[in-house]
Amino acid sequence: MKIGIIGGLGPLATVKFMEMLNERLKNDKNVEIIVINDPTTPDRTSYILNNKKDNPVFKILEMVKKLELFECNLIVMPCNTASYFYKEITKNTNIPFINIVEETVKYLNKNNIKKIGLLATEGTIKSYIYKELLDLYNIDLIVPDDKDQEIVSSIIYDGIKSNKEIDLNELYKVINDLKNNGSEKIILGCTELSALNKIYNLNNEILIDAMEILADSVIKYINHTN
Amino acid sequence: MKIGIIGGLGPLATVKFMEMLNERLKNDKNVEIIVINDPTTPDRTSYILNNKKDNPVFKILEMVKKLELFECNLIVMPCNTASYFYKEITKNTNIPFINIVEETVKYLNKNNIKKIGLLATEGTIKSYIYKELLDLYNIDLIVPDDKDQEIVSSIIYDGIKSNKEIDLNELYKVINDLKNNGSEKIILGCTELSALNKIYNLNNEILIDAMEILADSVIKYINHTN
Repeated sequence: MKIGIIGGLGPLATVKFMEMLNERLKNDKNVEIIVINDPTTPDRTSYILNNKKDNPVFKILEMVKKLELFECNLIVMPCNTASYFYKEITKNTNIPFINIVEETVKYLNKNNIKKIGLLATEGTIKSYIYKELLDLYNIDLIVPDDKDQEIVSSIIYDGIKSNKEIDLNELYKVINDLKNNGSEKIILGCTELSALNKIYNLNNEILIDAMEILADSVIKYINHTN
Repeated sequence: MKIGIIGGLGPLATVKFMEMLNERLKNDKNVEIIVINDPTTPDRTSYILNNKKDNPVFKILEMVKKLELFECNLIVMPCNTASYFYKEITKNTNIPFINIVEETVKYLNKNNIKKIGLLATEGTIKSYIYKELLDLYNIDLIVPDDKDQEIVSSIIYDGIKSNKEIDLNELYKVINDLKNNGSEKIILGCTELSALNKIYNLNNEILIDAMEILADSVIKYINHTN
């Protein structure tokens, strides 16, 4: 079994995702992992918000083609915002592709969650990639107000992606607001936030980490196909 | 610039090496990293010690060929013991390859170190891959006695590679013995120990981490060729 990872979206999240897989695989000798970490993929949120210039899908599809060359049996992409391109990816390859957003929404449904908060990039929120799927399961989505979203975006872009220090209290404030607005649980719906969670162990029972769910799904897929 | 990593020797060390590169690259958009994490590569130490059965070089060369397919400009392998196959690797590819052992020995020479301790696998020690290069620079090598080597091997194999808990005091004991035997500095000459260092921050001034030196060398190579 060869797992191909579309990486570099961003590089820290990719490494943390590999750690999550390693922890679950426990040196399973049957699983080869191939990672392409291409940092030149244009920013997904910029594309979604700014007049659709610099489409990242071309770089993503290039990576998919390389993973095909390697005869991967499964492709995953530890990036929520890039799931915006899910249909274009699956249209362009026959290799099974696990979608982080879909897996997370299925998890919520299975756990009977009815009102969910979302911490994500503006690109993920404004493109409704979570909302569209949540609607199918009648799960209400609660997103941060504009001021809180600015905090989240700043943590992702000015903090994690720029290797700068992060004030976790700012994040906890947004989490609290989402909680007060009725969220039963809150999705860490940006893999940079999942990386943050892995480093600092945010240790908050209300959080559901989309990247951890993706890692679980990969293991389920492997066990299912073996 | 595309850097190819021969990974999976072992998987934890590979991830920690990527972290080291990420920290140094700071989201440099010009550097793509491709990682092949093949866990089926036979154990290097077993091969060196046990009658040369199950030669890992074939798997390593397979990974090299795949990295050639990807048009990598540089290949690195975060594994000290596998440097045993250095000549066979460079004979089989035209892509520049940075050798972790060579870089570490050059570093020692540059820093005028004359007596160096070595924490490594039995394969690394008994194949003299460090000793041969250290001799060229007239640097004396001090290795653990048999009992201490058993401790080091157990930390690497029964601890890190098996995802089990490690008694750091045992490692500190070996470090102390090497120090008492005259080591000015001590090489963490197994990338699993470098991974341990990255996780626990052993924070010992006497230690020289070979994998950190390899990461530095990659960055120097990139800056030099740009």
